[in-house]
Amino acid sequence: MPDPAPALLDALAARLGSAHVLRAPDDMAPHLAETRGLYRGRALAVVRPADTAEVAAVVRACAEAGVPVVAQGGNTGLVGGGVPFGGLVLSLARLDRVRAVDPANATLTVEAGCILARVQEAAEAAGLLFPLSLASEGSCRIGGNLSTNAGGTAVLAYGNARDLVLGLEVVLADGRVWNGLKALRKDNAGYDLKHLFIGSEGTLGIITAAVLKLHPRPASTATAFVGLASAQAALALFTRLRDRAGGRLTAFEYIPPFGLDIVLRHAPGAVRPLDGDHGAYALVEVSAETPEAGPALEALLGDALEDGLAEDAVVARSAAQGRALWRLRESLSDVQRREGASIKHDVSVPVSRTAAFLERATAACEAELPGVRVCAFGHLGDGNIHFNLSQPVGMEAAAFLALWPRFNRIVHDIVHAMNGSIAAEHGVGLIKRDELPRYADPVALDLMRRLKQALDPQGLLNPGKVVAVGEAPGGVDAAVGPSFG
Amino acid sequence: MPDPAPALLDALAARLGSAHVLRAPDDMAPHLAETRGLYRGRALAVVRPADTAEVAAVVRACAEAGVPVVAQGGNTGLVGGGVPFGGLVLSLARLDRVRAVDPANATLTVEAGCILARVQEAAEAAGLLFPLSLASEGSCRIGGNLSTNAGGTAVLAYGNARDLVLGLEVVLADGRVWNGLKALRKDNAGYDLKHLFIGSEGTLGIITAAVLKLHPRPASTATAFVGLASAQAALALFTRLRDRAGGRLTAFEYIPPFGLDIVLRHAPGAVRPLDGDHGAYALVEVSAETPEAGPALEALLGDALEDGLAEDAVVARSAAQGRALWRLRESLSDVQRREGASIKHDVSVPVSRTAAFLERATAACEAELPGVRVCAFGHLGDGNIHFNLSQPVGMEAAAFLALWPRFNRIVHDIVHAMNGSIAAEHGVGLIKRDELPRYADPVALDLMRRLKQALDPQGLLNPGKVVAVGEAPGGVDAAVGPSFG
Repeated sequence: MPDPAPALLDALAARLGSAHVLRAPDDMAPHLAETRGLYRGRALAVVRPADTAEVAAVVRACAEAGVPVVAQGGNTGLVGGGVPFGGLVLSLARLDRVRAVDPANATLTVEAGCILARVQEAAEAAGLLFPLSLASEGSCRIGGNLSTNAGGTAVLAYGNARDLVLGLEVVLADGRVWNGLKALRKDNAGYDLKHLFIGSEGTLGIITAAVLKLHPRPASTATAFVGLASAQAALALFTRLRDRAGGRLTAFEYIPPFGLDIVLRHAPGAVRPLDGDHGAYALVEVSAETPEAGPALEALLGDALEDGLAEDAVVARSAAQGRALWRLRESLSDVQRREGASIKHDVSVPVSRTAAFLERATAACEAELPGVRVCAFGHLGDGNIHFNLSQPVGMEAAAFLALWPRFNRIVHDIVHAMNGSIAAEHGVGLIKRDELPRYADPVALDLMRRLKQALDPQGLLNPGKVVAVGEAPGGVDAAVGPSFG
Repeated sequence: MPDPAPALLDALAARLGSAHVLRAPDDMAPHLAETRGLYRGRALAVVRPADTAEVAAVVRACAEAGVPVVAQGGNTGLVGGGVPFGGLVLSLARLDRVRAVDPANATLTVEAGCILARVQEAAEAAGLLFPLSLASEGSCRIGGNLSTNAGGTAVLAYGNARDLVLGLEVVLADGRVWNGLKALRKDNAGYDLKHLFIGSEGTLGIITAAVLKLHPRPASTATAFVGLASAQAALALFTRLRDRAGGRLTAFEYIPPFGLDIVLRHAPGAVRPLDGDHGAYALVEVSAETPEAGPALEALLGDALEDGLAEDAVVARSAAQGRALWRLRESLSDVQRREGASIKHDVSVPVSRTAAFLERATAACEAELPGVRVCAFGHLGDGNIHFNLSQPVGMEAAAFLALWPRFNRIVHDIVHAMNGSIAAEHGVGLIKRDELPRYADPVALDLMRRLKQALDPQGLLNPGKVVAVGEAPGGVDAAVGPSFG
């Protein structure tokens, strides 16, 4: 059979304009690597359709030619889900319009290529809030957020990305367009299709637009930094605050002493928030529909101190102070690099087991490698811990990184024993694809494969990601690089 | 081929005990009809397995014998989704254990046969809230609530049934059990399977257990009854209250003047809540994590009165008064029967279009049949209107009911033109199965059929419901009875 690629690329150049079919290595390079340098992919070309009809035309042409398609938004993913191994990269970046704003319905209709920060701004301009918030919000695109069911810091009060979606427009594997752009709070007219595409990482269809659910903007927000005796105390404080503050508790982030130490050591301008040292720390945020978030948070923490649930606490006196406290939490990932190589795990357990998980996994890792420095932090209120390990001081980085499969096994085994998830908010992509069959219910895996087969029988949409069906793309294992998420 | 039924029933009697394989007409009768008397079904037997293993054994035996299985919970559905047309009825009623309570994780693990009110009580005993609340909560079962993605009065603040689920256990069409009983707030380990089964009305699998998400109990709740100039004014008041009260606004129910009239005429003990007459009414509830729900609601309504958004309002001074106001809303369905025959539509539109929908659909129905009395009420804050019609005074009930297809067409066409849903919270079942292809996106219908084919290739799970695949079960059209939802 002749190579279908040249004819396909010529046809696409004729359809999209040759400026939107990138073939030069320099033009393609940013689309072939990913954030952490773990994988280096390859592609025939990067195509940049302008609208849904052009996306459909590209996918239809690929289906006819038997050529794979990897959808990309901002290419900020952390699990290699957007790396191509042959075929076309389909960039959604040009589909970046806000199609509709309906303040009375509290909805936005946006195209997949909208940058998350622009979506947040469009909501704000309508007097409302789009709560999804991530470190990469200035460059990630909403289509990627939805196709990976992104998490972030606002999940506690507002849910994951999927909880913020009312409707979708999706290009299917054969190039047909499903118009599911409903803006309804209640709709039981048949099976729920949107949840199938959200979180499927571009393997079942390509999201081209979405109706997003907005929330009222809180009138006030207050932030505090709390010193605690231990992870168990952090959990006890969380349940107390959740039960008393309800939906007003908008963040509860766990920070270990080692984490605070390295932030204070490396982050520019970081200031010690509390005088003494504590066994654990929490960043707490309360939001209110009235101006009273500050007094409410002070009263809640005052009671907690009195009852011995917390050891010390400071409530930000200004928005600037609040942002400074948030920066302590947000700089954690960055400053970890300054302490050498790291091995990372994005995992979740039931909230009630977070403290036990932290204790058990820390002890197991320290027993495996004396001197390893556990930097486990994150969204304790969601049960989602970024269980990261920093290399022992003075160890060779490469020697440490060679241990990653052993640490993956130790940490994931404990997560599994606690009925947790080895892929909490970053997804499966490539990096966890071969871990999934080890831990997933075999019936669940079979169902996933059947869904893939039903929706993408040729296996052309982002092949080899999430669920391996048939042959995996080459070069995956060999491509694994310096750190692991 | 010999009839497989006798051998199947004998085998099941041996497995479950003959007391749990009901074959006598009197024993089976409650399982063959449904609440509104619209359909009368038939079945080989009603089987009552004791646990998940027995459910799996029944389904496996049916798969081998090629016999259909219709799952039933409390059999309180309003769209004929639980009516069998041959095959077995599989009652989940004996799977009624609360398997686990985890207050720190704010979750309950319950079996499908738990009555909704018992689930609410188990949450309350743990100091938490399971917010799903429906008229039939004393007899409906949680498995049915989830398989139909039930709505109810708490959707505004807490979402639909699917938003209250973290994990599921499901018996598949071939009798295998998917164990997806995860109790996690964040889990992206592969495709989201639970949302496929929630709302699929027993056509893709049989839910046997679920992990439910609980919420903190509000410390206080306040209820008000508001008089308004019009439906447009009700919508304006709703958006004002939503934007100012945020998650504290826990109900906003619309009641038309005709609705209040017939409640006051027929409901025992109903007392006129406001002195004057108004063009529209709303029942408003605010809940707070502090004792201040009452003052907060008074302040919100005080401002609304001052700004001319509302004409009059009364805030309940006691819990008993609050319940009395709620009874005005809750008795609407019941008292409608006292005004003769009714034709019903459970529909939704974007919240921003509710008032326009009410105006347009009312005008169209009144033009079609002068004297028809529109009784449109419901969850305006969710965009979900129960657009019901009471017969003109003095008309023959049968003559009025003969007009149902014409009214369905009028109302559903308007809903469709407003990008709404013809099946908002009650589901599709049988009653809307043949309406679905008229209004659904054809690509969506094809996807639904592919999913059905992928998960139930023999078509044995609740055949003929939601999506017709192959031949529809006999007797459906002929069975349509006296009133239509």
